[in-house]
Amino acid sequence: MPLSPDQQAEIAAQRATPRPTLRAVSDGMEAHLYHANPVLDHGFVRVIDYMGDDAAIVQAARVSYGAGTKHVQNDEGLIRYLMRHWHSTPFEMCEIKLHVKLPIFVARQWIRHRTANVNEYSARYSVMDREFYIPAPEQLAAQSTQNNQGRGAVLDGSEAARVLDILKTDAMRAYDNYEAMLSQDGQQGLARELARMNLPANIYTQWYWKTDLHNLFHFLRLRADAHAQYEIRVYAEAIAACVRDWVPLAYAAFEDYRMGGATLSAKALACLRRMLAGEKVTQETSGMSAREWREFIDIFG
Amino acid sequence: MPLSPDQQAEIAAQRATPRPTLRAVSDGMEAHLYHANPVLDHGFVRVIDYMGDDAAIVQAARVSYGAGTKHVQNDEGLIRYLMRHWHSTPFEMCEIKLHVKLPIFVARQWIRHRTANVNEYSARYSVMDREFYIPAPEQLAAQSTQNNQGRGAVLDGSEAARVLDILKTDAMRAYDNYEAMLSQDGQQGLARELARMNLPANIYTQWYWKTDLHNLFHFLRLRADAHAQYEIRVYAEAIAACVRDWVPLAYAAFEDYRMGGATLSAKALACLRRMLAGEKVTQETSGMSAREWREFIDIFG
Amino acid sequence: MPLSPDQQAEIAAQRATPRPTLRAVSDGMEAHLYHANPVLDHGFVRVIDYMGDDAAIVQAARVSYGAGTKHVQNDEGLIRYLMRHWHSTPFEMCEIKLHVKLPIFVARQWIRHRTANVNEYSARYSVMDREFYIPAPEQLAAQSTQNNQGRGAVLDGSEAARVLDILKTDAMRAYDNYEAMLSQDGQQGLARELARMNLPANIYTQWYWKTDLHNLFHFLRLRADAHAQYEIRVYAEAIAACVRDWVPLAYAAFEDYRMGGATLSAKALACLRRMLAGEKVTQETSGMSAREWREFIDIFG
Amino acid sequence: MPLSPDQQAEIAAQRATPRPTLRAVSDGMEAHLYHANPVLDHGFVRVIDYMGDDAAIVQAARVSYGAGTKHVQNDEGLIRYLMRHWHSTPFEMCEIKLHVKLPIFVARQWIRHRTANVNEYSARYSVMDREFYIPAPEQLAAQSTQNNQGRGAVLDGSEAARVLDILKTDAMRAYDNYEAMLSQDGQQGLARELARMNLPANIYTQWYWKTDLHNLFHFLRLRADAHAQYEIRVYAEAIAACVRDWVPLAYAAFEDYRMGGATLSAKALACLRRMLAGEKVTQETSGMSAREWREFIDIFG
Repeated sequence: MPLSPDQQAEIAAQRATPRPTLRAVSDGMEAHLYHANPVLDHGFVRVIDYMGDDAAIVQAARVSYGAGTKHVQNDEGLIRYLMRHWHSTPFEMCEIKLHVKLPIFVARQWIRHRTANVNEYSARYSVMDREFYIPAPEQLAAQSTQNNQGRGAVLDGSEAARVLDILKTDAMRAYDNYEAMLSQDGQQGLARELARMNLPANIYTQWYWKTDLHNLFHFLRLRADAHAQYEIRVYAEAIAACVRDWVPLAYAAFEDYRMGGATLSAKALACLRRMLAGEKVTQETSGMSAREWREFIDIFG
Repeated sequence: MPLSPDQQAEIAAQRATPRPTLRAVSDGMEAHLYHANPVLDHGFVRVIDYMGDDAAIVQAARVSYGAGTKHVQNDEGLIRYLMRHWHSTPFEMCEIKLHVKLPIFVARQWIRHRTANVNEYSARYSVMDREFYIPAPEQLAAQSTQNNQGRGAVLDGSEAARVLDILKTDAMRAYDNYEAMLSQDGQQGLARELARMNLPANIYTQWYWKTDLHNLFHFLRLRADAHAQYEIRVYAEAIAACVRDWVPLAYAAFEDYRMGGATLSAKALACLRRMLAGEKVTQETSGMSAREWREFIDIFG
Repeated sequence: MPLSPDQQAEIAAQRATPRPTLRAVSDGMEAHLYHANPVLDHGFVRVIDYMGDDAAIVQAARVSYGAGTKHVQNDEGLIRYLMRHWHSTPFEMCEIKLHVKLPIFVARQWIRHRTANVNEYSARYSVMDREFYIPAPEQLAAQSTQNNQGRGAVLDGSEAARVLDILKTDAMRAYDNYEAMLSQDGQQGLARELARMNLPANIYTQWYWKTDLHNLFHFLRLRADAHAQYEIRVYAEAIAACVRDWVPLAYAAFEDYRMGGATLSAKALACLRRMLAGEKVTQETSGMSAREWREFIDIFG
Repeated sequence: MPLSPDQQAEIAAQRATPRPTLRAVSDGMEAHLYHANPVLDHGFVRVIDYMGDDAAIVQAARVSYGAGTKHVQNDEGLIRYLMRHWHSTPFEMCEIKLHVKLPIFVARQWIRHRTANVNEYSARYSVMDREFYIPAPEQLAAQSTQNNQGRGAVLDGSEAARVLDILKTDAMRAYDNYEAMLSQDGQQGLARELARMNLPANIYTQWYWKTDLHNLFHFLRLRADAHAQYEIRVYAEAIAACVRDWVPLAYAAFEDYRMGGATLSAKALACLRRMLAGEKVTQETSGMSAREWREFIDIFG
């Protein structure tokens, strides 16, 4: 249950008082504002603010290309053209601000996307809450035997139970000791900036995260991908669901050209041309390594 | 006269139809939206969109510092504290999008501020308009004798007249020849991407420019400064006037700590301490170079 | 002839005095250092410094992936893997610093690549040289009839001659008037920061430009592409020739996966699967627009 | 003891084989290359590569300002001028690449400096080492009573002993359980990307971190400052010691204008002018808040 009754009441109050604006308004996004979309066991994603809509992308493109864009008959066609030809700047004209609650090991992966603005809860200034990510049993998987960075089969019941017991027990003990070190009851009390070092990477933190739509699409392509770690992928999917309602035309183009598309090498294109001409191509005659060939076959079966 | 009647009508239409939103609204900024603030002879600055307000800065800071900010009694004090201690990320949580019409030599200086999003009118796609910046006579100044990058005395009348005649004549001829090269009347017509190279740096271009408040303050500090070239300073001043109405508390802190403040070296601080103790300090005993001393005296005269 | 005898002598002196270093050294790049590679009629590209080599990319990747990279048997395989899977950070560990002399209209396009460091010759501080880009006759092409931002047929001889005459005459007149306005002979002399506005966009400027290999590859993909304007493409090609000698493995991977590759949409992949299965697909049955289909056929035609 | 005998041998080998280069060489920095400077109990900073030296800063500035820099008589004066007037781009022309081993809670603070390139050891690909930061007893301090983000008095002996016992015991237990979950001995073995979540924030990670000199100075100003947390400050100090030998002129200017300097508000400047004129100014008559006044007195006390 990610939000307290107080927080729920605050959201209800914020949502109760629309105000007039002359800015671009996305009705699809207004419906999302402030609502906490639950992610994992204690996390959430909330849209706090946004700037622009599909029409803002078109407007920016038409400033750049002037009369040159007149022949594209409609906004959808222009947005698809921009996406297809990597004209990224019009998408940068939209901006989104999110409030996210997430485990620290997810935050560490997320922050590697540098083109964003971040305000994170500070464990130097404040005491962390006792909230830890404990995976659902069906997420407890073994190391992949094929992929050095992935998961394989789900752990069987007794092993999963042992893991859950470790994760829960260690988290509670670490937090108990965190509190014990901070305590000023009969002792001086360790500084917060030091005590925090005892907390494990599955403790929840939170931040405000703001980025533009172009960089958000880049984030989503990498993190909503099937190869991304499950624990960040569910955040990406929660964000993607908001973006679909915010800028439906841009999101549809993104799905077609990025999420559902593929980048092929010169070697792969050459193979495809031969195959389309009726030739039977094998890994041996493809010029690709075994791994590249496997990835190629994954796409074209 | 920077805007055509058509454009004025479009602005009036945009301003006539407020829509409800649940986002943060700055009433001061709503009053600016879409209006073209004239700059130079044909330029303008228009606010197209914005995200956040003073309260959004405070809100982001409180996410970071949590209970640690509770002792700052009000928003103004917290914003001043953030500005004083270079806590830049809360200011990054506000965003502004401008439509600017400006001479190319100003655009070239402006674009060096890299942390921004830009869509510029493309002279590959479209034909440039016949609009050139011609300085007012009181802006026609001689090279400074003291400052390698500045202006000195205003040119006397006959020299100013010669300069204006050159600028106007060359601009018109360059544009006539631009049109002549583009023309498909009885000839093939040169490609736009080539013909544009004949146009001088005082022709007007336009762009959408979007940045966050922290980076905007950095831009304003450098470009609204007395040492900035007049032709970019007037744009910075026009933007500053909008920012003052958008985030009045942040802008007041910016004026006190950045625009009106000064950064002093260790040597300068040491001199001040000696002077406050009653010692008479001269350049010779200051440890500063002649130029540094002059800049120091300019502040404390 | 882009370099003066003095500059040639300076380069010879710099190249005459190797010094010992413990850093990574790329012999292929050492051979390029300081030499000016001529571009266009007066421009050049010179490598001033570089950091890293192919081994540095591998080294950085192995820090990240640790034992996880051990199974990739050699550096080439690992570099190809990194490129194929968009692992961009190891490529960011290499850096290059160039000295470039280029027309202003090229510089304006180039500077839109924001993730780079730039020091440009300042026309506020210094007087510009009398050097202008005048295209070779075979580069004087008409506006494309199919592409709003491209060139079509080469201009016929008499039209080309008229264009060349305009470009040369206007450039010389603009520069004569620039000098006349600056002159302090019998007059005060206009400030440099103002006089420069009379100069057309084909005048040469110069800058130091420094970026990392990942961002350089992005630049090359867009600017060495057949759709880029010729006048920036030749700079990209001159840089690419240096990069090939600097990091041969990374460059080969870049050529295969980026320059020679293609990004296909979900719709395009679906069509390919149908075609590979023996179905005849037309634009009507492809789900693509006429333009998308044409681009698709261009690849697989 | 941060480095194993194997690593020491590898460093000795790298340092034994200088190679000739035509690039700028900083002898001061060559002496640092590859050596691990120990930081904290198991951490280190190693310079892996660098680009440029003091002369490269001057060279870049002279490209920008051309003849305008001739009147500055020497490199030191020019570098001081650039630093004093916030001309940051020449400093961006130098680049440094470091190998750093550091606790995760330090890495989380460090990564907020976004303008840098990073390759971090991946706990998805590889198993973390059993190395944890355990503070020296003299670093175990109580929460500051004045500063929400700082430390106060050192903990007394018995409280310090309790804290050290907690930190050590929890770290060892967390690591034992990490290994137990990973183990494939008689069980499937949890995926590394999941098992890592049990590890506390004082475990050591490592990364390659590359940035330019301007951004490095910004990092050092904030992180070598007396208000920075001790555990990151010691890294900043270790880096600063290398930078001093790498670019001695630039570092000296940085020390004078940034580390030893201060930014004063318009209000503070006004007070100083009154005080220099002999007036006695108090907080009540200063226009400053109590806190601002206290910070002002700290400088001029």
